[in-house]
Amino acid sequence: MIEQSVGDVMTHSVRTVSVEATGSAVARLFAANGIGSAVVVDEADNVLGIVTESDLMQQVASDADVTAVQVGSFMSAPVVTTTSAASIDAAAELMHEHSIRRLPVVDDGHLVGMLTTTNLAHYIPRLRDAIRRARTGSKRS
Amino acid sequence: MIEQSVGDVMTHSVRTVSVEATGSAVARLFAANGIGSAVVVDEADNVLGIVTESDLMQQVASDADVTAVQVGSFMSAPVVTTTSAASIDAAAELMHEHSIRRLPVVDDGHLVGMLTTTNLAHYIPRLRDAIRRARTGSKRS
Repeated sequence: MIEQSVGDVMTHSVRTVSVEATGSAVARLFAANGIGSAVVVDEADNVLGIVTESDLMQQVASDADVTAVQVGSFMSAPVVTTTSAASIDAAAELMHEHSIRRLPVVDDGHLVGMLTTTNLAHYIPRLRDAIRRARTGSKRS
Repeated sequence: MIEQSVGDVMTHSVRTVSVEATGSAVARLFAANGIGSAVVVDEADNVLGIVTESDLMQQVASDADVTAVQVGSFMSAPVVTTTSAASIDAAAELMHEHSIRRLPVVDDGHLVGMLTTTNLAHYIPRLRDAIRRARTGSKRS
């Protein structure tokens, strides 16, 4: 119904961190790159979980020592993922269902991107154009 | 083109904080309510700015003492706002243009809600249905 797929709108560059990274290191990574999440991987680049601004916020809220607390202790795992071939509206529904804002995109075991609610929001004006085209088709038929 | 407006998809309950609130207090507010931003208001409830997880993240990243640093020193101000009557795709374009993920919704000087990229992402399956209806109309005409 919506012809474009996750791969067309996702962010291709994804930052990864290890379970040993500290809260402070993750905060610096987020701030330096203007991002709100990173995928947690092991040495073989297998996806172990995701760490988000909200996860880190809860550490700050509970007065954890963010210079010492490690990602492995507060990441979200297991993580819900999608594939680059998935439809955009299926991915949107998956986010809604799990109350999450980010989906790592994994093809054949390899992390290839990240889909966020921001990617989806930026896609809305293009959806508007799809509706316009569908209606124009209606008038011409 | 997209008939529904910002008021139909926005979050109606918006948390507000004062410029004197500390980073820690804001982190606790975010964590306790599962939110990522709050609107900064003065005593007369005038909108002064917005404070987001990312703003707080930058304080953590720069090793600020979050138990002491006050919202007024690190909030985003002035803040881009929309109205409940604005179209959803215009709001999506506004977010894209300013690289922001949240728009306080202000009607006649009163804060009435918040529109986030999450609200917009949840709206996408409904847009898909609008496209489907437009195409069905095409076949029937």
